Amino acid sequence: MIEGHGDDLYKYGNITANFSSNVYNEIDHTLLWKHLGQRMECMVSYPEPQPYTLEGKIAALYGVEQENVCVTNGATEAIYLVAQRYSGSRSAIFVPAFSEYGDACAIHKHKVVGAESLEEINGLCKAGEVDMVWICNPNNPTGLVQPKGELASLVERYQEVVFVVDQSYEFFTLKEVFSAAEGVQMENLILLHSMTKRYAVPGVRLGYITASAALLGKIREIRMPWSVNAFAIETGLFLLRNDISRSTDISVLLERARLLGESIASLGGGGFFEVGETHTHYMLVKITGELNCREEKSASAAVLKEHLARKWGILIRDASNFATLGQGHFRIATQTGEQNTLLVKALEELCM
Amino acid sequence: MIEGHGDDLYKYGNITANFSSNVYNEIDHTLLWKHLGQRMECMVSYPEPQPYTLEGKIAALYGVEQENVCVTNGATEAIYLVAQRYSGSRSAIFVPAFSEYGDACAIHKHKVVGAESLEEINGLCKAGEVDMVWICNPNNPTGLVQPKGELASLVERYQEVVFVVDQSYEFFTLKEVFSAAEGVQMENLILLHSMTKRYAVPGVRLGYITASAALLGKIREIRMPWSVNAFAIETGLFLLRNDISRSTDISVLLERARLLGESIASLGGGGFFEVGETHTHYMLVKITGELNCREEKSASAAVLKEHLARKWGILIRDASNFATLGQGHFRIATQTGEQNTLLVKALEELCM
Repeated sequence: MIEGHGDDLYKYGNITANFSSNVYNEIDHTLLWKHLGQRMECMVSYPEPQPYTLEGKIAALYGVEQENVCVTNGATEAIYLVAQRYSGSRSAIFVPAFSEYGDACAIHKHKVVGAESLEEINGLCKAGEVDMVWICNPNNPTGLVQPKGELASLVERYQEVVFVVDQSYEFFTLKEVFSAAEGVQMENLILLHSMTKRYAVPGVRLGYITASAALLGKIREIRMPWSVNAFAIETGLFLLRNDISRSTDISVLLERARLLGESIASLGGGGFFEVGETHTHYMLVKITGELNCREEKSASAAVLKEHLARKWGILIRDASNFATLGQGHFRIATQTGEQNTLLVKALEELCM
Repeated sequence: MIEGHGDDLYKYGNITANFSSNVYNEIDHTLLWKHLGQRMECMVSYPEPQPYTLEGKIAALYGVEQENVCVTNGATEAIYLVAQRYSGSRSAIFVPAFSEYGDACAIHKHKVVGAESLEEINGLCKAGEVDMVWICNPNNPTGLVQPKGELASLVERYQEVVFVVDQSYEFFTLKEVFSAAEGVQMENLILLHSMTKRYAVPGVRLGYITASAALLGKIREIRMPWSVNAFAIETGLFLLRNDISRSTDISVLLERARLLGESIASLGGGGFFEVGETHTHYMLVKITGELNCREEKSASAAVLKEHLARKWGILIRDASNFATLGQGHFRIATQTGEQNTLLVKALEELCM
């Protein structure tokens, strides 16, 4: 999907509070900018055809071998590479989900079925109806994390099924997820990771895959050289040496998200917004009452999005294009206390 | 191909004269570095999912529509996208050629045949034996440009064959090549272009495809979002506004290349090196005599490459891995007069 993602800031000129992307944006980038400013010369040569050096450093950090790490042009390249490697598979996608799994599977001729729970996935695997399972964990857009033990049991039980677990938001939850070191022990598990979400530099595009050497070797065979540019590699190397996210207190972030959700759910005495449970800093909200967005009343997230952008400079993610979700769904990620208050205020005047 | 390309500087610590890459490297990047230093904030948001703005500016510059331009993560992404879009085709590749055409075709299950001349390609098309033709023009590694009229005739004559013409080095020749505006008029022609070769920033990875809206629309359908990062987009936008290559005098560059080739051909009284004809700033050289590289004599480009790197800090491109070339072939691009003199001196002492 090219259009319809969040963070479509480029379409608006006036956004001052961006709730539409799941990227946490309170990182101080001063040191990173300074470093990159001194390293511009990296652009006058080709980057490493595969980012070996960065792969080696990531491997060392997480206690795996370099052959267990494949750095990609964002987690999105990882998704497309995996879908291509297993083209023609029968894939189950845990839904609702980030749309790129479905799109990558469609392009690479997978037969796709949606599954709304681990039980349903268990049933599909047991019946031999799928070759692959795609799970975003923590899930995007819901923010829910599946119990690690249950997920591990599925992966172990169905050795003939390849499980792709996208852990792009792993840093933003206190629930347990797979470590890279655990992951590479399982011959049928592919973990996807994001570097740029953690450090709030999504413009850089930097992700990586961890998996057993055998699985990852097959994926490397189909990739093009130089897909990660010199600037992204330089950014990754710096961020591994200088953890500029270390001041991020996840429990504070999650508490702020909880308060935001609570405030929205109670607007207008309740009945206007249904806020979904989440294990991370973003959440799904469903419009359940008629909002006074324009002259007319509306329960559409698309209408609400335009209203908030035009009147308040607030951007939310219209989530109606996620499979299984309806026109009333939108997704928001907690921002600063002040910005959260602004969003609540903007929503409040619509609940009357 | 991941390994075996030129510009493998990252493997050596001591290179001071790099003849191995075809990137012209006498551009003054001061203004670009300064601009990028002020635009670091572009990295805290997602880039445009497809680089619409940059595509629009390129289209305006070359007098085509925005729908005729697709900006890619280097010309390499363009090659892989095109191969994927026409997966399973019967492809003729003009050889010797940049290895990525063959690799991308192999990954996407093309049946590949090499062709060493336009006549041979004409024969294959006439016999209905190929669906696609890949030509690098100016050619890499030879530097030769095929006559535009002959190429255009082929494209017009065989409407059922898709011609992919990679013009990554178009800026570095005085021979006539297709303009984007001419190209989009032909329904079966795909032109590939490089932005970063012209401006000597290959670390950035920035290329683009121009083609008819119908052809390009089909290619866009299979691409992932955000494959060009925010930094590359910012670089492209700057370079369109500020042509920092305008001081490059191509005729001076080509004359310098001619002198370099002449000097090498005459070393040791002739008979040691055969220098290929070229229409651009790089050329193929074949070792035709035994060189005194180590204790033993050798006519291998691989041995010569190691010798020059270790002893002189000079990097050349071992070209023995190009189809149809042998172990004695290497490729060099002209550098400054001083560096060219150093290379000639380094080669001279081996011719005795």
